[in-house]
Amino acid sequence: MSSTAGQVIKCKAAVAWEANKPLAIEEIEVAPPGPGEVRLKILFTALCHTDVYFWEAKGQTPLFPRIFGHEAAGIVESVGEGVTHLKEGDHALPVFTGECGECPHCKTEESNMCDLLRINTDRGGMIHDGKARFSKNGQPIYHFLGTSTFSQYTVVHAGCVAKVDPAAPLDKICVLSCGICTGFGATVNVAKPKPGSSVAIFGLGAVGLSAAEGARVAGASRIIGVDLNSSRFELAKKFGVNEFVNPKDHNKPVQEVIAEMTNGGVDRSVECTGSIQAMISAFECVHDGWGVAVLVGVPSKDDAFKTHPVNFLNERTLKGTFYGNYKARTDLPKVVDMYMRKELELEKFLTHSVPLSEINKSFEYMLKGESIRCVIRMEE
Amino acid sequence: MSSTAGQVIKCKAAVAWEANKPLAIEEIEVAPPGPGEVRLKILFTALCHTDVYFWEAKGQTPLFPRIFGHEAAGIVESVGEGVTHLKEGDHALPVFTGECGECPHCKTEESNMCDLLRINTDRGGMIHDGKARFSKNGQPIYHFLGTSTFSQYTVVHAGCVAKVDPAAPLDKICVLSCGICTGFGATVNVAKPKPGSSVAIFGLGAVGLSAAEGARVAGASRIIGVDLNSSRFELAKKFGVNEFVNPKDHNKPVQEVIAEMTNGGVDRSVECTGSIQAMISAFECVHDGWGVAVLVGVPSKDDAFKTHPVNFLNERTLKGTFYGNYKARTDLPKVVDMYMRKELELEKFLTHSVPLSEINKSFEYMLKGESIRCVIRMEE
Repeated sequence: MSSTAGQVIKCKAAVAWEANKPLAIEEIEVAPPGPGEVRLKILFTALCHTDVYFWEAKGQTPLFPRIFGHEAAGIVESVGEGVTHLKEGDHALPVFTGECGECPHCKTEESNMCDLLRINTDRGGMIHDGKARFSKNGQPIYHFLGTSTFSQYTVVHAGCVAKVDPAAPLDKICVLSCGICTGFGATVNVAKPKPGSSVAIFGLGAVGLSAAEGARVAGASRIIGVDLNSSRFELAKKFGVNEFVNPKDHNKPVQEVIAEMTNGGVDRSVECTGSIQAMISAFECVHDGWGVAVLVGVPSKDDAFKTHPVNFLNERTLKGTFYGNYKARTDLPKVVDMYMRKELELEKFLTHSVPLSEINKSFEYMLKGESIRCVIRMEE
Repeated sequence: MSSTAGQVIKCKAAVAWEANKPLAIEEIEVAPPGPGEVRLKILFTALCHTDVYFWEAKGQTPLFPRIFGHEAAGIVESVGEGVTHLKEGDHALPVFTGECGECPHCKTEESNMCDLLRINTDRGGMIHDGKARFSKNGQPIYHFLGTSTFSQYTVVHAGCVAKVDPAAPLDKICVLSCGICTGFGATVNVAKPKPGSSVAIFGLGAVGLSAAEGARVAGASRIIGVDLNSSRFELAKKFGVNEFVNPKDHNKPVQEVIAEMTNGGVDRSVECTGSIQAMISAFECVHDGWGVAVLVGVPSKDDAFKTHPVNFLNERTLKGTFYGNYKARTDLPKVVDMYMRKELELEKFLTHSVPLSEINKSFEYMLKGESIRCVIRMEE
């Protein structure tokens, strides 16, 4: 057993004391895991747009001080009472959604939306007792998405921790716990393009590029990138995107442009922007008879998806997905294995890297649109 | 070869001389089939809502005189040049949609929306030369849906004719060429409920009852019928419907009523009314994580389907179907075989029967809501 098991650990963390202010590197205290919980030593974490969105306090009742971070990889330091599938020393990815194993969603192969451990952006403590495991000088610091990986140690519900191949490099696979799987899974698990088919990807950020990577791996021959920012097109070629449409370059709806390019529509589309207009275009640009559109991007709360119902009756399908339909514990280890077999490339997503002491730079890279993923080295 | 092959046939037909006026039984002339066409002797036909809708001239630029009818069964009298898959004496079902065998839709297993032979409600002549094969005293009489089965003889594109088991009773299987397959296929081919699952059926007319029959055959354990007319509930029990909801009995949206009945939503829903509000309810009443809603009913041309996109992102799927995703020539013979093996019951749909001379009674039965299907005996 680890020498720190059962004890409070002091370590460094990047704390958001208030919205929109640079994170502060602080020495904090991390309590031992409670029943059903795991304490992880985080070695690498990456910044995702969702961290920035909530740091800006755009999506919630503001909850500060808080430790953000949810794309990460680490090693199990200790486990709480009743945890049987993980032990000290296991290499692991914490995930913002989980698998309780008991609810109807966990019991069907079709869903990954666990009733107990589904994403909850408002919760600031642990499910077990509602309390935070982080504190500084006795003041609790709130959790974020149940992961809070901008800390050298964190406590996570065991159902949100995937045990992975210890040979996998943690500085690479850390990005699998959110964006990459979200986009990649949307294509390979939900849109399921056939070899030789055409796929339109709306939005060429990290999630969209991951969706394109999924189309490439699935053998799609035409991968059409759609983005309002043409400067993204060059980079997107690395991810298999081989045709481009900037809706600003056309004076008709982009779905019509795509239908003309593809003799009636693409076989599949994946929407990764969250813009309601892009969602409608992504649906209406798929071919009648067999087209499938998949929504990934998160819309604003007042948005309405609107289309003529005949677009459905002409045998088009519209589906949504959450985290690429991956079950955190069951499926994530298999994605790591795909990476190890070189079927999925991660390196090209990792454009930047900084030590924990410079974590605020990762926010700058993202806000300027310079990075796909910036990995934060937690021990430096 | 038939003694009438190559010659004009004189026979009886029910002609609609103008909108909304009773059909007139006339002796008409039916020209021989042109290249790629088949002349069928129609023995039994049934009345469908679509006939009535176009007879009322609600859905088109009015086209009269016209011979309606598209649910029917008969025998091949003769075939035109180049027709190889049918010959004189074959038992056959004419279908309002077809399979050219050459277009992308025909070449994929996923679609039945043939580019050449897709339903066309405006066309009044044959595809080959644009001309009608029917006439009376030299005046052409327009075709309807390429089938015009309210005539003792009709000419149909060979791609719209399914050859079926000659042992199958034509007075029963005639109803497979439209409504029954539309509803049944929507459930078994598209919604695909698993054994033991829950299915909501919106609209308990012929198509909805067929969808319920599909759910029964698929082994669904809860089949929830939704209809504004509670008098339909008793009959629906014969088709496997075992729970009922009349939206008028509740002061909250029916999707909420169904979600409460089913711990979060049904596994599948099938919308058979064409009401835009029912479409939205049918989508929103399926369970997150795995629910699939299928649209069958034909909407008005100005309708807009509208929902919050999060309903999709929570892993719900919305699909539409046309003719139950059956390919007319390839699949219809297999449905006839299912009936012959007693896996699909047709008798319970056949509530009325009249001779051709009383065909106008079938319109009355339908308009009063008394019939599911009224079969018209064409030789009487």
